[in-house]
Parts: sequence; structure tokens; C-alpha cells
Amino acid sequence: MSRLHSVLAVGVLGVTCLTARVQADDKDTIAYRQHIMKAMNEQSAALGQILSTVAPDDNAVAHLNAIALAASLALKAFEPKVSGGESKPEIWSNWPDFSQRMNEFAQKTAAVAKIANEQGKDAALGNVLDALTCKSCHDKYRAEKK
Amino acid sequence: MSRLHSVLAVGVLGVTCLTARVQADDKDTIAYRQHIMKAMNEQSAALGQILSTVAPDDNAVAHLNAIALAASLALKAFEPKVSGGESKPEIWSNWPDFSQRMNEFAQKTAAVAKIANEQGKDAALGNVLDALTCKSCHDKYRAEKK
Repeated sequence: MSRLHSVLAVGVLGVTCLTARVQADDKDTIAYRQHIMKAMNEQSAALGQILSTVAPDDNAVAHLNAIALAASLALKAFEPKVSGGESKPEIWSNWPDFSQRMNEFAQKTAAVAKIANEQGKDAALGNVLDALTCKSCHDKYRAEKK
Repeated sequence: MSRLHSVLAVGVLGVTCLTARVQADDKDTIAYRQHIMKAMNEQSAALGQILSTVAPDDNAVAHLNAIALAASLALKAFEPKVSGGESKPEIWSNWPDFSQRMNEFAQKTAAVAKIANEQGKDAALGNVLDALTCKSCHDKYRAEKK
């Protein structure tokens, strides 16, 4: 986490001038959306372990909330038209399709999280695979680096 | 995300037997806690970008909530006494200290998230560095793999 702590050290100064204009270069923009997608990936992987019964399901509701929260942020992080990372340029050349998929993903994961919060984890886990449409979007818009 | 999707494919079967006993081996236990810590790391890194003004602060409240949510899960994921990954064995030999630190971390991040939700991001960001005590704990309990 040394990278984070370098950033936070800078942040000690930055926090005194939060109203300063954001100066994001392309590298920052790519890093920011990657943080969101990776956080979502890790939370989804934890949920996957629960679904395959190799992790206890105590935290299932929390993981669903975390996925929905990250999903709600994801589209906006791609709005700056900056190719790079694992993003294919088709994200921006097919923006209406990409943004529709991302909005649907956010809506579906929010709906499953709502079920989890109101009816409990078992009700939600039965509906979760329909919400996690990651693969169809990655197949089209992600150039995965192995 | 192919690993996730393999897991989710297993999950299609798994979801039909959610009441089955969890059969987590040591590798699963380590992977599960790593997913939680990595999710927290990515959300913290996104927040770090905001603090250093290289990312817009629109999502600051969401990142703070995501960090608090992951922090609330972290300690329990270390309860199984399974060395490996980046965890030093001192986690379990000094469990009272480790668990106290993790509980304080969860409490502090929850408090900052509460400020964010009730008073807005600017109020919260001014208090966040005191809550993010990651480094002191990592120095003692994490053997970071570069």
C-alpha cells in the first residue's frame, strides 16, 4: 500500500485546498476508473466464493451493497474519453450501448442489494447471477491484460 | 475476470444448495480475506486520488462508505488462523492487539462515513487521514509482496 500512502501524504497538503481545480492527467483518469472496477471485481469475487460455498455467507449482504455502490460510480468514471488500461476504444465509439449496459448493471445490482437489505441474503443470492452481467460487457469492451 | 466467472459458474450450482456446509480450505480462506483487503485498498486509493486533487471529488462520500463497509468485514475474515498471503503470523500470536487495531479502524472509518453522509464530503475529508491508520498496522502485520 506504499503507493496509497504516498498519495495520502500528498493528500495532507491537498486537503487544505480541496476547492483547487482538479488536475487529472490521462494516467490519473485511467487509475481512478481502475480503482473502481478492481474494487468491484474483488467484492464480486468474494461473493463468488460465497455462491460456490467456499466462504461463509455471513457477509453476503455487505458484498452485495459494496458491488451496487461501486456499480453506481462506474459509468461516470469512464466519461472522460481516455483510452488505455484494459478499456477498448469501442467504449467511446459505442457510448450509447456501453452507457446503457452500465446503467442497467447499476440498476440490477442496486435491485439485488435492495432485496438483500429488505428480505435477507437468501432471497438476494437467488437473483444475483442475473444481475452480474460482467462477462457480456467485458467480452465487448475490455481487453484483459493477463 | 475469468477467475470470477469460473467461480460464478460453480455458483450456479452452489446457489441451489446454499444451506450446504461451507467447505473452505486454507487457500479459500486466504483468498477471501484478500478480496476484502484489496477492495478496501482500491477504494482507499481512489480516495487518495481525490485528496491529492487528481480525481474529482464527486464520489468522495461513496468511497468513504465503501471503505467503512469493507473495514467492518475485515477482522472477521482474519479469525480463521490461517497463515499465508501477506499476513504475518504475528496477527494470530498478537491477536488482542491486532483485533483492537482492526476494531478501531472499523469504528473510525464508520465515524468518518457518518460525517460524510450527514455533513457532506468536505467535513469528512478533513478528518479522514486520522481514520486511515492502514500503515501502522501494515508495518507490523503485513509482509507486502512487491
